[in-house]
Amino acid sequence: MTPILPSYLQDAWWAPQDDPDAAVVRDASTGEEIVRVSTAGIDLAGAISYARAVGQRSLGALTFHERAMVLKQLAGVLNGRRQELYDLSRRAGSTLRDSLGDVDGGIGVLFTYSSKGRRELPNGTVFVDGPPEPLSKDGSFLGQHVYTRLPGVAVQINAFNFPVWGALEKFAPAFLAGVPTIVKPATPTGYVAEAWVRMLVESGLLPAGSLQLVSGSVPGVFDHLRLGDLVGFTGSASTAARLRAQVGEGVRFTSETDSINASILAPDAAPGTPEFDAYVAQLFAEMTTKAGQKCTAIRRAIVPTGSVAALVDALRERIDRRVVLGDPHAEGVTMGPLVSLAQRDEVLRQVEALRAAGGELLLGDVEAPRVVRADGAVGLAPEGAFVAPILLGFAGAAPRDVHDIEAFGPVASVLTYETLAEAADLVDDGGGSLVTSVATHDPATAVELLSRIGAYNGRVLFLDRDDARTSTGHGAPVPHLVHGGPGRAGGGEELGGIRAVLHHMQRTAVQGSPEMLTALTGVWHQGASVSAEGSHPFRKSLAELRIGDRIDSASREVALEDIETFAHFTGDTFYAHMDEAAAEANPFFPGRVAHGYLLVSWAAGLFVDPAPGPVLANYGLENLRFVTPVSPGDEIRVSLTAKQITPRETDEYGEVRWDALIRNQRDETVATYDVLTLVRKEQDPAPEGAHTAQAVVA
Amino acid sequence: MTPILPSYLQDAWWAPQDDPDAAVVRDASTGEEIVRVSTAGIDLAGAISYARAVGQRSLGALTFHERAMVLKQLAGVLNGRRQELYDLSRRAGSTLRDSLGDVDGGIGVLFTYSSKGRRELPNGTVFVDGPPEPLSKDGSFLGQHVYTRLPGVAVQINAFNFPVWGALEKFAPAFLAGVPTIVKPATPTGYVAEAWVRMLVESGLLPAGSLQLVSGSVPGVFDHLRLGDLVGFTGSASTAARLRAQVGEGVRFTSETDSINASILAPDAAPGTPEFDAYVAQLFAEMTTKAGQKCTAIRRAIVPTGSVAALVDALRERIDRRVVLGDPHAEGVTMGPLVSLAQRDEVLRQVEALRAAGGELLLGDVEAPRVVRADGAVGLAPEGAFVAPILLGFAGAAPRDVHDIEAFGPVASVLTYETLAEAADLVDDGGGSLVTSVATHDPATAVELLSRIGAYNGRVLFLDRDDARTSTGHGAPVPHLVHGGPGRAGGGEELGGIRAVLHHMQRTAVQGSPEMLTALTGVWHQGASVSAEGSHPFRKSLAELRIGDRIDSASREVALEDIETFAHFTGDTFYAHMDEAAAEANPFFPGRVAHGYLLVSWAAGLFVDPAPGPVLANYGLENLRFVTPVSPGDEIRVSLTAKQITPRETDEYGEVRWDALIRNQRDETVATYDVLTLVRKEQDPAPEGAHTAQAVVA
Repeated sequence: MTPILPSYLQDAWWAPQDDPDAAVVRDASTGEEIVRVSTAGIDLAGAISYARAVGQRSLGALTFHERAMVLKQLAGVLNGRRQELYDLSRRAGSTLRDSLGDVDGGIGVLFTYSSKGRRELPNGTVFVDGPPEPLSKDGSFLGQHVYTRLPGVAVQINAFNFPVWGALEKFAPAFLAGVPTIVKPATPTGYVAEAWVRMLVESGLLPAGSLQLVSGSVPGVFDHLRLGDLVGFTGSASTAARLRAQVGEGVRFTSETDSINASILAPDAAPGTPEFDAYVAQLFAEMTTKAGQKCTAIRRAIVPTGSVAALVDALRERIDRRVVLGDPHAEGVTMGPLVSLAQRDEVLRQVEALRAAGGELLLGDVEAPRVVRADGAVGLAPEGAFVAPILLGFAGAAPRDVHDIEAFGPVASVLTYETLAEAADLVDDGGGSLVTSVATHDPATAVELLSRIGAYNGRVLFLDRDDARTSTGHGAPVPHLVHGGPGRAGGGEELGGIRAVLHHMQRTAVQGSPEMLTALTGVWHQGASVSAEGSHPFRKSLAELRIGDRIDSASREVALEDIETFAHFTGDTFYAHMDEAAAEANPFFPGRVAHGYLLVSWAAGLFVDPAPGPVLANYGLENLRFVTPVSPGDEIRVSLTAKQITPRETDEYGEVRWDALIRNQRDETVATYDVLTLVRKEQDPAPEGAHTAQAVVA
Repeated sequence: MTPILPSYLQDAWWAPQDDPDAAVVRDASTGEEIVRVSTAGIDLAGAISYARAVGQRSLGALTFHERAMVLKQLAGVLNGRRQELYDLSRRAGSTLRDSLGDVDGGIGVLFTYSSKGRRELPNGTVFVDGPPEPLSKDGSFLGQHVYTRLPGVAVQINAFNFPVWGALEKFAPAFLAGVPTIVKPATPTGYVAEAWVRMLVESGLLPAGSLQLVSGSVPGVFDHLRLGDLVGFTGSASTAARLRAQVGEGVRFTSETDSINASILAPDAAPGTPEFDAYVAQLFAEMTTKAGQKCTAIRRAIVPTGSVAALVDALRERIDRRVVLGDPHAEGVTMGPLVSLAQRDEVLRQVEALRAAGGELLLGDVEAPRVVRADGAVGLAPEGAFVAPILLGFAGAAPRDVHDIEAFGPVASVLTYETLAEAADLVDDGGGSLVTSVATHDPATAVELLSRIGAYNGRVLFLDRDDARTSTGHGAPVPHLVHGGPGRAGGGEELGGIRAVLHHMQRTAVQGSPEMLTALTGVWHQGASVSAEGSHPFRKSLAELRIGDRIDSASREVALEDIETFAHFTGDTFYAHMDEAAAEANPFFPGRVAHGYLLVSWAAGLFVDPAPGPVLANYGLENLRFVTPVSPGDEIRVSLTAKQITPRETDEYGEVRWDALIRNQRDETVATYDVLTLVRKEQDPAPEGAHTAQAVVA
């Protein structure tokens, strides 16, 4: 007998002594036993308590950027051991191409979240959402939305098809948010999940309690969960509904379920166009990659009636030319088996149901196919879970069943339409999908379709000659964009960059004085206390600079001559600066006024401290608004206040955002903006390796 | 017998012929019958279908800004008829002060959403969420999150305590999103809701099908709802749980339930401090406003053990001095009855339960109080639902019941703590609240508390000497900030400015070429087609300008002399511009470089068209990033492309956002930013009334 696959609980490996009822996991191609799975006697309550206590504490000690750096290191560990994961995945039926999506895709999610975490989150633990909202006329009472992390544990319940990506895409944002994770893989591919968890554990990089693995079932897990915990489920819609009903008050439940995704061949994408070819190539890829075992795969090809025959021909030709069905261990195999005989039987049952609903076999059949075995021999292989690509056709109006039944394998149905409205209705009949793709090169078609199908889809991909070569594909979620969809697709959202991090945090509206909001957010709020004492803030390193440090400049009069000098120097002779009568006729100006660019340029001259010091560069400017025009004879002065300080983990400097406020001699606000600078952490001379920094200048 | 309160369905008033089982609604103070309520025979399915067909169509024909303008007009209608609503509300037990929160508060929500809708949403129907995400190296494939409206109807199920605000705060964001509403008020105050709906109907301003009213129960309503519909429930946690279980797949269910909200008196807010006084004043207001019938009211006062006696004394003094309990029709009455005898009995039952759990009566009692009748006479009034303010005390550890039991009236409990951690734990024991307030003037206390209680609260208010006078109050949701909370509070979110509009829309990740994303969003994306033909884009009015219209400037060489001229003119003699050796030592510069402000000033000179024309002003700049330094001898040129066009509904001009790209002679990107301008709708001369525009300049 094979061993029982271990779990990783409370920072130690654990498995039952033995369990005669353990589930047996077999090679998808050969039926050979690989491992057994059981959690008999597991201490789930202990694992959950450990996550809440130890995991929350160890992650809570890190900032967003520090967590992001760990994610990058973890990604590096897995990247160096990809081959082991490819090898294991072959046993589950995955070809190398299939594994790229799962293994490399999963590693890519870690890298992306590491990068986004450092670019888009502060180097702290509180995320500020949106601008402050003034709630009193005198500015003494403000509102500000912030996110703080949930105090519990994120429990993942995963599907079998992506044992690496499916877990890492949930783990990365939870980790970045500071929430510990318990991974529960699906039994048929649990050994692949165990492998990557083991790699991470062996690296020694995981903060205590931040990751646990349950290799097997989690009976009664929901009884242990409470407000502040999360459940992320991926799998069938029916299981999602059952689990959702068990979730207690306050436990966040996200489900991402397989949906009956659609792909529209638009009227303009007629046979012979690049869009038609791209459509066929994409449909082929979706039917055959992972043998069609993807929640995002195309199940319904929605096609103009007149294009069906050409589509079937083109797809047949492609299948004949490209599909080599067999054991992924054999040379030349391009499509593997389903994950198990049980899955194969289930898929064939659903194909029968679709046929009973009126579906005709346009391509493929349900007989056992001839396949390539590991040793290269070709023949029938009843011990393997092989199914050849199947395309079903529905003449006339599509029956309801085609929008409900999912054959989770290399199976799609062709539905026909006459008008664009009908095509949209067919999409929407799916009751909510993870993704719909549309092959069209006509913007008007795209606009009309999005207005009708947007609310029924988590993602919509528009495929045409311009992006066919670079498209990431109908079936491929990317970490930058949300993954999930309404209705049948589970109603949840994962990924989407920082959005997924925030799903692990609570949004709270905080109200208080500017002083309190500054303390709570780490961002200086107008009206909070400032310090203009001591040295010029540009002389302070990050180690010395404090939020609220300010320079109040001297005043400088703007003469008409200055405006003219600036106009001639820059070439900006806009009439509002040069022609008194025309400027007066303008509804916003009292007469000739100073250039806005003159004002911000002078402001820099007023606040700058010219000698070399910790401030290295002004790399940008944000939210500039010109509020009151400046006429010849007016005086301006500027106040510059340290607003937000973001030291970089990887460099000897960091970002400082300054609040800039230009006022005139009547104390009216002339302009407001944020100045973005890079400032050294210490007073030392130029840091090593800083030349590697990008996208940064004077 | 009184008449049956009508419903407004399918743009017509309707009531049952008669219904002997109709509910009777009585004056809260006198018990006099006001009206009867029944929906016997109502065609709910018809109302829902009408909303989906007619309401969606009429709202869909309007842009966000057009809907916002209607909201403003609706607010004006109600504002002119406030007195009628005050008068009706008195019968439900509301004093004028109570009505300000409900009536004026509700009108304020309409005004706020009208204003935010025009300032923060585009003048179109698709909302763009976040920046585009590059998904291919060559820029030909991008991702972009967008929101499109849900295709269904928003059904409101409201609580009795805020018949105006409670409905309008849900209606305004739904309307702005383009989703029609069906309002179902609570029976005891349905006649107040009927009144404002009637006012809006009489105004003739409502788009067809955009608002319907069901005066009475909605049996089986959930059977008619489907993907794309929403339910917004306000009421008890137990009812919310029951309703949630009935909601079908894909129907968005938001609940906002009364929670056991807390208010912490921090250790520094000792008796004698302004924070202590503010705490007492706030607790008093929360106990007595609307006779404590607010989901957000303070139920648990969390107080240092040593401050309890002082708190009770101060609160008693305030109650004795300020509370005049009675019929709101009587002169001088400051606190009215509960809404009904049934509510009074329920509150007294819960008070008994709290006493059974160990609560001692610190203030008030459960005996029928002496009250002022409408005619000014003082005495017992068993026909009215009067309860005097009650403060309960719990010595030692608080029992579980105090975190669960809600007495929905003028009732609060005092819990004691020794350490800040204990205070936070007590807040969190509430299992999720709409709001917690904290009286503290110590930022460190605030930071520690927020990190511990943030995830358990939808809103946290910090009260101190700086904001006590201007605070909007513990119990007052404001339209700018989210309202709702996790766990016991229902797990939902309402309000929060545009966030609430987006709750009525679906977020979809759209993938495609720059050309497609430009068409789908109305925002020009880098790589989409441009038109540099014809006249300078600054010569085009909004009627002529198109997204993608571009000016490509000539090149201009930056000489060392220019840098020096600029430095001396502006005073910006930062060493990176003036000192070759020091600049070279800087990690980001090859040597002396041009000022960033010089570059954008010259760029303006290169793209500007100086003569008077449709472009009225450059009012700001966003997202400026300096990417590549410019050395003496380098040349720069700028491309300016019309990126987004937002005509104003109220003015003869609108905003045009331009994509600005400065490149050097090697075609490297020097700087990127958005230029914000105001542009006339037509070529006509200065528009009337434009001088009223604010926050705008050269």
